[in-house]
Amino acid sequence: MKISAGKLRNLIKLSDESGRFKMMAIDQRGSLAKILAKYAGGDPDNLPYEAMARTKEAITELLSPFATAVLTDPIYGYPYSVRHIPAECALLLCTEATGYDKAGPGGKERKSKMLEGWSVEKASRAGADAIKFLAHYSTEASNDARSHQHQVIRALGAECAKYDLPFLLEVVTYPIHEASVDTPEFARKKPGLVAECAREFSKPEYKVDVLKLEFPADLKYCYEYSRRVFDSKEREPIYDLEEVRGFCQTLDEASRLPWVILSAGVAIEEFIKDVELATEAGASGFLCGRAIWQEALTAYPDIETMKEYLESDAAYNFTRCNAACDLAVPWFDHSPFEGWDSVELAGQEPDWFMKY
Amino acid sequence: MKISAGKLRNLIKLSDESGRFKMMAIDQRGSLAKILAKYAGGDPDNLPYEAMARTKEAITELLSPFATAVLTDPIYGYPYSVRHIPAECALLLCTEATGYDKAGPGGKERKSKMLEGWSVEKASRAGADAIKFLAHYSTEASNDARSHQHQVIRALGAECAKYDLPFLLEVVTYPIHEASVDTPEFARKKPGLVAECAREFSKPEYKVDVLKLEFPADLKYCYEYSRRVFDSKEREPIYDLEEVRGFCQTLDEASRLPWVILSAGVAIEEFIKDVELATEAGASGFLCGRAIWQEALTAYPDIETMKEYLESDAAYNFTRCNAACDLAVPWFDHSPFEGWDSVELAGQEPDWFMKY
Repeated sequence: MKISAGKLRNLIKLSDESGRFKMMAIDQRGSLAKILAKYAGGDPDNLPYEAMARTKEAITELLSPFATAVLTDPIYGYPYSVRHIPAECALLLCTEATGYDKAGPGGKERKSKMLEGWSVEKASRAGADAIKFLAHYSTEASNDARSHQHQVIRALGAECAKYDLPFLLEVVTYPIHEASVDTPEFARKKPGLVAECAREFSKPEYKVDVLKLEFPADLKYCYEYSRRVFDSKEREPIYDLEEVRGFCQTLDEASRLPWVILSAGVAIEEFIKDVELATEAGASGFLCGRAIWQEALTAYPDIETMKEYLESDAAYNFTRCNAACDLAVPWFDHSPFEGWDSVELAGQEPDWFMKY
Repeated sequence: MKISAGKLRNLIKLSDESGRFKMMAIDQRGSLAKILAKYAGGDPDNLPYEAMARTKEAITELLSPFATAVLTDPIYGYPYSVRHIPAECALLLCTEATGYDKAGPGGKERKSKMLEGWSVEKASRAGADAIKFLAHYSTEASNDARSHQHQVIRALGAECAKYDLPFLLEVVTYPIHEASVDTPEFARKKPGLVAECAREFSKPEYKVDVLKLEFPADLKYCYEYSRRVFDSKEREPIYDLEEVRGFCQTLDEASRLPWVILSAGVAIEEFIKDVELATEAGASGFLCGRAIWQEALTAYPDIETMKEYLESDAAYNFTRCNAACDLAVPWFDHSPFEGWDSVELAGQEPDWFMKY
């Protein structure tokens, strides 16, 4: 498998020496503001800049040493945190605006947009080793909403190719006909919806390099975990663990690209189970945010107590996640790659540098 | 000290966790071809591409794990070697054409030029964490030769600023009025010539970030080492160790930028002494090529025997060099920086990403 220079060098940087991604996300904006406002009081839309930036700084400083790469945002994340990211930890920068535009009938559909005033070109200059974009996506959405997402992602894929940076696309499904994600109806649809995302964005036209996917089921609706294993609510099971293993397998087959699992704010015990099941099926690791560090925020605005939590429990969460993906499939062993020995530079010849 | 995003992130990547540069150079072209031709026979100008590329690949694969950064060239170095550079080892790419154009009276002066078909833009895309340029320079050269060098370096500094990549400038002095570098006359001039290089290219107009400098004396002409300590030739001493310490001090004062010491093909024992003396005076580490790995080439074209040497003696050379700069001055403690705590992002404010 031939791969271009920047994509090859940077995929190596994002993963560990075995080709596994053990990455942390601290690029949350809207969702983080809500949590901080909950603990400190006040309006999430009017949180002081420093509240977000210093919280991200503490999390980045204390947890990035555990990560093969850290994903942050250019607004609150980069300015204070960049000096704390170790040399051996790669840097991903997000490019989407937080949230989404409501679209479709009843405003139940979602359109993503780029962060204004920011670009792949700027991220490249700022030392990003990869570009991340978050898109909400449902095959049940209207043509209009889906086409919008296709178009935005295709354009970004072309930009990433231009700067030769790996493109990591996060795709998150959402309920259109259901009251919320935490319903048996949505939980039942999830395996299919997530697999469709993987299938769609594996298409070469989007030029994605790594997919960041949801776990393709809601384990809280899984027979074995339905009785308050992960939270205090008992739920009617709709599938069992054997079926969930099948969903993971289907997802891995749908993804023609290396993929990692995201945490979507689930608690750490559930996320570790997600990682185990996903990597068993073929995922190449994780890109995890809140599951690892969200408990630290309960101490906010007491930064010192937050730091104590980050150095102890959150660090332990991270080492457990890392351990859970120790048998993940290295990115170069996942389709479209065919093993490390077959990974080589596109145009590997004496005049490579002239044609590049 | 405020520093731009890409330069900050990449200076962190080039150095170890204490801010010291332990870097390897394998970007030699002309000089490497000559050595390989010597051992394998044949014309250095007509060496097969593979001979150079596979030799560089072996050296990069086996020695880059010891380096905080590796400097290679885009022609022979990058294509086969990039897959062997570990995630935690930063990448420097050179931008000069090998050799120099002869200039001045009698053709004794030197003008450097950019490698045709290559650019800072391409290096940035290929994942370079910094840009290196080698310039031959002498304050004794004509205005014409010196102005040419000033101009090339100024233009490259502007390009590096445009792509926000650290600019590492290597400056090498040369004899104009002397028969060779290995003469008492040139050895006597060297401290002054090297200090003048540092003084000139520390000027902000060149936008250099790190200087790669020669040792400011020839230790083989130093009283203590003049009696066959480093090679089989006895020489008339022209200075002693105390004076050499003074030259290093003068050089450190002349350099208003962090600087590293280069090896210029001296043997390992001499280079380790160079590193000790330079770092004692204020250097931030080394960028060393032949001193570490040149002995391996004596086995060429027997790549397996070369590899054995690289894994044993060359690896040992590297760990000794690393140890020798364990007390080097971290880059952020050298002028123009004022310590790690004062290093911060230029424009560190909420709209940083828009203005960047």
